[in-house]
Amino acid sequence: MPASGATISGIVAYPITPFTADGGIDHHSLHLVLDRLVDGGASAIAPLGSTGESAYLDLTEWTETAASTINHLGGRLPTVVGVSDLTTAGAARRARIAEGLGASAVMALPVSYWQLTALEVQKHFEAIAAAIDIPVMVYNNPATAGIDLSPTQLWELVRDVDNITMVKESTGDINRMHQLRELSDGTLPFFNGSNPLALEAFRAGAAGWCTAAPCLIPDQIRAFYDAIQRGDDETADAVFGRIQPLLKFIVTRGLPTAVKSGLALTGIPAGEPRRPLLPATEAEAAELSDLITASVG
Amino acid sequence: MPASGATISGIVAYPITPFTADGGIDHHSLHLVLDRLVDGGASAIAPLGSTGESAYLDLTEWTETAASTINHLGGRLPTVVGVSDLTTAGAARRARIAEGLGASAVMALPVSYWQLTALEVQKHFEAIAAAIDIPVMVYNNPATAGIDLSPTQLWELVRDVDNITMVKESTGDINRMHQLRELSDGTLPFFNGSNPLALEAFRAGAAGWCTAAPCLIPDQIRAFYDAIQRGDDETADAVFGRIQPLLKFIVTRGLPTAVKSGLALTGIPAGEPRRPLLPATEAEAAELSDLITASVG
Amino acid sequence: MPASGATISGIVAYPITPFTADGGIDHHSLHLVLDRLVDGGASAIAPLGSTGESAYLDLTEWTETAASTINHLGGRLPTVVGVSDLTTAGAARRARIAEGLGASAVMALPVSYWQLTALEVQKHFEAIAAAIDIPVMVYNNPATAGIDLSPTQLWELVRDVDNITMVKESTGDINRMHQLRELSDGTLPFFNGSNPLALEAFRAGAAGWCTAAPCLIPDQIRAFYDAIQRGDDETADAVFGRIQPLLKFIVTRGLPTAVKSGLALTGIPAGEPRRPLLPATEAEAAELSDLITASVG
Amino acid sequence: MPASGATISGIVAYPITPFTADGGIDHHSLHLVLDRLVDGGASAIAPLGSTGESAYLDLTEWTETAASTINHLGGRLPTVVGVSDLTTAGAARRARIAEGLGASAVMALPVSYWQLTALEVQKHFEAIAAAIDIPVMVYNNPATAGIDLSPTQLWELVRDVDNITMVKESTGDINRMHQLRELSDGTLPFFNGSNPLALEAFRAGAAGWCTAAPCLIPDQIRAFYDAIQRGDDETADAVFGRIQPLLKFIVTRGLPTAVKSGLALTGIPAGEPRRPLLPATEAEAAELSDLITASVG
Repeated sequence: MPASGATISGIVAYPITPFTADGGIDHHSLHLVLDRLVDGGASAIAPLGSTGESAYLDLTEWTETAASTINHLGGRLPTVVGVSDLTTAGAARRARIAEGLGASAVMALPVSYWQLTALEVQKHFEAIAAAIDIPVMVYNNPATAGIDLSPTQLWELVRDVDNITMVKESTGDINRMHQLRELSDGTLPFFNGSNPLALEAFRAGAAGWCTAAPCLIPDQIRAFYDAIQRGDDETADAVFGRIQPLLKFIVTRGLPTAVKSGLALTGIPAGEPRRPLLPATEAEAAELSDLITASVG
Repeated sequence: MPASGATISGIVAYPITPFTADGGIDHHSLHLVLDRLVDGGASAIAPLGSTGESAYLDLTEWTETAASTINHLGGRLPTVVGVSDLTTAGAARRARIAEGLGASAVMALPVSYWQLTALEVQKHFEAIAAAIDIPVMVYNNPATAGIDLSPTQLWELVRDVDNITMVKESTGDINRMHQLRELSDGTLPFFNGSNPLALEAFRAGAAGWCTAAPCLIPDQIRAFYDAIQRGDDETADAVFGRIQPLLKFIVTRGLPTAVKSGLALTGIPAGEPRRPLLPATEAEAAELSDLITASVG
Repeated sequence: MPASGATISGIVAYPITPFTADGGIDHHSLHLVLDRLVDGGASAIAPLGSTGESAYLDLTEWTETAASTINHLGGRLPTVVGVSDLTTAGAARRARIAEGLGASAVMALPVSYWQLTALEVQKHFEAIAAAIDIPVMVYNNPATAGIDLSPTQLWELVRDVDNITMVKESTGDINRMHQLRELSDGTLPFFNGSNPLALEAFRAGAAGWCTAAPCLIPDQIRAFYDAIQRGDDETADAVFGRIQPLLKFIVTRGLPTAVKSGLALTGIPAGEPRRPLLPATEAEAAELSDLITASVG
Repeated sequence: MPASGATISGIVAYPITPFTADGGIDHHSLHLVLDRLVDGGASAIAPLGSTGESAYLDLTEWTETAASTINHLGGRLPTVVGVSDLTTAGAARRARIAEGLGASAVMALPVSYWQLTALEVQKHFEAIAAAIDIPVMVYNNPATAGIDLSPTQLWELVRDVDNITMVKESTGDINRMHQLRELSDGTLPFFNGSNPLALEAFRAGAAGWCTAAPCLIPDQIRAFYDAIQRGDDETADAVFGRIQPLLKFIVTRGLPTAVKSGLALTGIPAGEPRRPLLPATEAEAAELSDLITASVG
């Protein structure tokens, strides 16, 4: 059931994981990105999601990045650490490490090479939750995970497992938001993970928006969320209209590649993504630069 | 270009990776499975594919399984070792290990958390091929990998990269088989990885069929392939009709779970799949048992 | 040459690494130990030395422990993180991780399975130092490392390599302390790592004492060091006389086993050491309890 | 008690682990070394001892090397695979892998950062033995391991633990050989691991000699052992006199460095040892070349 840990709401910002030229974690750049997110008004920080190239890090690098993020934030914002792993044992180990290092909550996607059954997904999440005492945010993203969890499945996980308290929904289907609200009678904090749906989702009652966009345009994201909070529909619409092309671009090109390219354009050298991902081409960087400029309005 | 290594054809059999009760690799059961595949007339063995739970093994377990398979076969059949990994560096390392241990060829799927661009896929495969001297089989399976490589892309990889010599196509779209044959003027050995398409694919000129079914019904698969080879369409149709429900069941339920359950039913205790995968229920095992019986005809 | 980082002096306290019942890192107990060391007046904290069972941790656990220590201290005291590893590449990687996580300095012992030549030791330390910008403390302990570095070798490393700035000497030979002072004309901060030599070493000009004893008797160690600092020989002698039997016991029994047993006796459950190390027997614990009591005076 | 596995005797040859220029395992060179050892009349092959740089390999490389050795030998000679690891769990895992890959026996040294108690050593070996069904050779080498096991301790391990069946003694103290024979009433196969003691040890009843020398001078080692076996003391003395300077050199310089240098001199490029180990200098290689020539007589 939604419990004490479920106090996260608003803009949940996703940092990339910067690499040095020799392929290690670039802590200095990571800290610059985190400071930008904090200064830009983010409500929580979610390291080691897909934007953070979590799937491409070995467990030591993952631990190093989680620790560096939590330590540098020093309690300024809550953290929701991505602990997705192909095996249940691996995800539970990551969850324990995250808790030990001081994470506020963890987030998990049922990534799987194989189509999992409903029971397999349930047992997977139960095992992660049982490994820790901090809250778990379950995450549905069929495009990435290959598994689609219905609003009912998501709600039942929250209802039945003590420290599963939040849901992140990334299908981009607004009806699911409505269903989550109805099923939970409004008690479930659900987060939207689909950038194009940000405006609609807040209007449907989403507790927050999980997005990497504040890495590049923190002020616009803050202006948008401020408008949402004070019920200023006109401004929210206007800002969202301006940032939408950028949102679409970074998702389509791939978040690590696009956000790292955009960080370089905005003064934070974040290195290249890890192969097979390739850095943005010059043409892509030019387009991105234009979109960043255009988003300011 | 198709080169010396491309002498693999026929039934490419996929063993599961059996685990002991404490979670380690069960070499004894693995050897029993391999002997059944050899005795059943398989043409090649493909360990550490998705059936082999490759994605759920750590690199040491992966190495242990590759070595145990190659060693136990002792040259009786060629091996096509799955080296898929999320990172390019990881896939190249696996390819080098497989070659060092005596694999005949390697197979790679462009698994990725992120949608890769055509150029990213190409560079990924080129890096794997450049790491070794043995042939590479490129594998297209959008349902698992999240990326769909067109026949043209697949053919260009074979045409342009020296030791990429074979293609495995698992979309289940027979038109792609025809395209591969036409694009390559009949020079490209392509393999079908979609069980329901086995009959049609051979008729479209496939060099082989990649399948885990011989783990459970080696004699039926052999009878089917013998009929194909001698052009006995009637028998091929009849056998395929009998085994199709089983093929459909094991794919739908998930190959590791279903094949391990079926092995237990047919005298080889192969343990449970690794979590999040769950073992087959009693009802599923009963259904599978009936399907195995029915396949004999 | 001794540079900015070389401001560490006094009691360099060595925490153990506590394990939970299922073998993971026990962050809660680790934090209790660290707080005791800070409250007890330690001057610096040196996690992941031999007391910290560094050699028995995998790299992820090592990273987790380094991060948890640095995070929990939050700048209250400088840290000197042990980065010893059998391979040069491994030690350099640990050094980079420690620096990234915010360590004040690193310490390295030339642990080796093989007797290293003087040139091999020199290249090893140079590679570690080259990997980072924070200071390196080189550590001589032939009993553990199997290699004995002479005062001349140690001094030359400090003199010739930019960020090697400190020496820890654990042979228990007071003459080496005198030689280090003479060779460096008093400019080299050297630390004593031999518990029985603590008093003599300070009198020979040691900058500090590296010891796990404050885990168990922080007040006595503080009283001893306060007396040393104010030149109160009589008190220093008296306190040292009282604590010496305890110092001898914990070294002889093995620091992880003895200190973990002593922590349990003094209110901090720190779990068992990792096998092959065994926990203290009841008789050993009883003896240790008496020695702790006797040390209070 | 000495059981079926204890049929290893004679020259137990230690291959180095060759690396490619980019630091991976060089399987081709490894196979050349193994063929030389087999052709040179070795009785058994002991990969992954200290000569094999086992301590410098990660677990995947260790597995790869064990598998490649066992596969390439293909049953021509029994294998005794080194499974030493700092932790008990690590050594037991290696033992299970070795058994799974088809090793004839395993060998373990109680390597430890900390001085282990007699009980800790006993429990460590019991855990390794309990993990497998193949024989265990316990190995005493205080110079490397930092722990000295008395003949009585060694004998009691063999007497009390089912599949501990052999002892390797490397102190170079001939009296220990006599004690082992007496304690076991001649039933215990003990092996000498001290090169300078080879002649004396065989005369004291040693079952075999564990040595890397056949990598460089297989014919001389065979001539020596043939003379031992037929009781031709004069020839044994003469040959041993000629090879002794070489034996001394390779031990003193460090076996991986010296043997790899010697292999290059005798036609097998084995690459460099892993850092911190450095390759032999030109002067050392010249000296080694002379010693190889002189050993022929």
